[in-house]
Amino acid sequence: MTQTIADIETPAVLIDLDVVEANIARVQAQFDGLGVGFRPHIKTHKIPYLARLQMQEGAIGIAAQKVSEAEVFAAEGFDDITLCFNLLSPDKITRVRRLMDSCHMTVVADNAQVVQALSAGMAGVATPLDVLVECETGMHRCGVQTPEAARDLAVLIDAAPGLRFAGLMTYPAPGGVHQVEAFMSAARPLCIAAVGHCDTISGGGTPSMAEAGLAPTVTEYRAGTYIYNDRSMVDRGACTLADCALTVLATVVSRPTDTRAVLDSGSKSLTSDLVGLTGHGSILGYPGAEIPSLSEEHGRVDLIHCASRPQIGDKVQIVPNHACPVSNLVDHVIFHRSGVVLRSEPVAARGCVQ
Amino acid sequence: MTQTIADIETPAVLIDLDVVEANIARVQAQFDGLGVGFRPHIKTHKIPYLARLQMQEGAIGIAAQKVSEAEVFAAEGFDDITLCFNLLSPDKITRVRRLMDSCHMTVVADNAQVVQALSAGMAGVATPLDVLVECETGMHRCGVQTPEAARDLAVLIDAAPGLRFAGLMTYPAPGGVHQVEAFMSAARPLCIAAVGHCDTISGGGTPSMAEAGLAPTVTEYRAGTYIYNDRSMVDRGACTLADCALTVLATVVSRPTDTRAVLDSGSKSLTSDLVGLTGHGSILGYPGAEIPSLSEEHGRVDLIHCASRPQIGDKVQIVPNHACPVSNLVDHVIFHRSGVVLRSEPVAARGCVQ
Repeated sequence: MTQTIADIETPAVLIDLDVVEANIARVQAQFDGLGVGFRPHIKTHKIPYLARLQMQEGAIGIAAQKVSEAEVFAAEGFDDITLCFNLLSPDKITRVRRLMDSCHMTVVADNAQVVQALSAGMAGVATPLDVLVECETGMHRCGVQTPEAARDLAVLIDAAPGLRFAGLMTYPAPGGVHQVEAFMSAARPLCIAAVGHCDTISGGGTPSMAEAGLAPTVTEYRAGTYIYNDRSMVDRGACTLADCALTVLATVVSRPTDTRAVLDSGSKSLTSDLVGLTGHGSILGYPGAEIPSLSEEHGRVDLIHCASRPQIGDKVQIVPNHACPVSNLVDHVIFHRSGVVLRSEPVAARGCVQ
Repeated sequence: MTQTIADIETPAVLIDLDVVEANIARVQAQFDGLGVGFRPHIKTHKIPYLARLQMQEGAIGIAAQKVSEAEVFAAEGFDDITLCFNLLSPDKITRVRRLMDSCHMTVVADNAQVVQALSAGMAGVATPLDVLVECETGMHRCGVQTPEAARDLAVLIDAAPGLRFAGLMTYPAPGGVHQVEAFMSAARPLCIAAVGHCDTISGGGTPSMAEAGLAPTVTEYRAGTYIYNDRSMVDRGACTLADCALTVLATVVSRPTDTRAVLDSGSKSLTSDLVGLTGHGSILGYPGAEIPSLSEEHGRVDLIHCASRPQIGDKVQIVPNHACPVSNLVDHVIFHRSGVVLRSEPVAARGCVQ
């Protein structure tokens, strides 16, 4: 018997595979057209099945943030993984070295201590570990601050036993494509002059994706959120609600007043991420409904501007503000096509904090 | 060999058992002194070992939000569980019925549909299910709106096959103790007049705990956060940083500028909960450090007002804004006493969304 999402216990995280496939195809085609390698970031979905769809469409490899995520995907046969995070602990670096038996691993560094730790962990390695220099281009997070500092760290990497300078990497601020191009087009020749090569220039980010062509120095692009999209991407004009593949299914469990509904989904399934937005998600079919506040297990819905109001027992689909952390809250998601349930799929790399 | 928290891979969630035991003893003594039953809410820790400590100190039972949480704790021998959440789905109610074989279960309702669903699920049951009427006393979440509505729902419950009206329940707004007392002291006699009894008046909330004595109508008190405490409780003056048992251990992985540090802990371990605060946690030993923003895996630390500044490779302990959702992000926590590691303990009821 056909099961539909109306039969699913709530709260639950639903993934529309039709939308996923369209998002994968559209974005891969964009980067194919630009002649830029596309490297999906698995932090958004944490699911090997979906990364395999991304590879089949033409991705050059995957990106991950944590060694434990890389281990999950390497065990599933993925053999080209970039870890976009400074590693310092000998244990984590030893685990990367183990992954190098089956994977082409690339890591990043933005300081000399990380380079030293990586080199110490690679003592006697047969093939050196590829290391990208992380550069700051406006995100105010990690990254060397100037093209000259990028060059200096490239020299340090190139001289470090067991390591190979592989190029430059950045995660830009949304809309920061011109800063990326300015930094990379200055740093690349400096690195080439100093160490003779600078193969990869890795840019990224779903928010800046539409402008990727404005940074021609970039040779590969990392993005995660685009596979699901979310309310923050709709808000930026990067997509429409129809392009959002991930929704949280919730039940109206209370209607305490005429203008208030309470859902059985709170921050434990929607997260409390605001990402600069007002409210905690868009309820499909109820454009006037607002979610002004969440407890862990309760979602409070304000129906004042809502012409048609959901009743107790009604199930609703919520497009969350930010899809990525939602994936990390559930052990499995429900795959469906236009509401017809296909199967429950484990979120294999959920909870990989280290 | 003694392991200390300095040896732990990061990020990790640490629990200081000395502080936990002191928090449990202090709060239990407060409610013993008031002659009020104390029912700890396990949503904060989700760990049977800690709930056992709470029971040994004198708790009358536990509270949970989800049937799946109750199942985890019932399997560990807990036999008095209150589920503080409206249940509508036949499957969830069937699971509650199964738990009634080994547990005294109490549930809540704030509307007639929930009462009907509960009664349908209890058809032919030997001992009726205890149902509390959830009352709104200022939280603007679930709950009947007036004492008269509480009485009317009590009558409905009392007449419903398989159910027994067990009393009233509320989760107050912080500082809302007078509203609780006003509502409950009006509703209780109405219920007694209508159905002959109103045994339990269940109040709760760590933020309002200090004022619990100002609501003498309350017969039992539910609270969760007090066992760990967190930055929001410090901010309210409910405790000091020394009373905070849960910290997130993180490593400084980057110092891109003189005034910025980046931690390997972001919203995936600290959550993005602000709970009305500025910044995303207090870093122990660095009172001037601020955490203005988190990515999923990065914590950005502003060191402008920081006299002594942590260096790359330093490990720091962060008291998060809100302890409860942090528990839900990790598969296990590290128990320690004053920094000496005891063991890794599974968060048995993590991810129990349904």
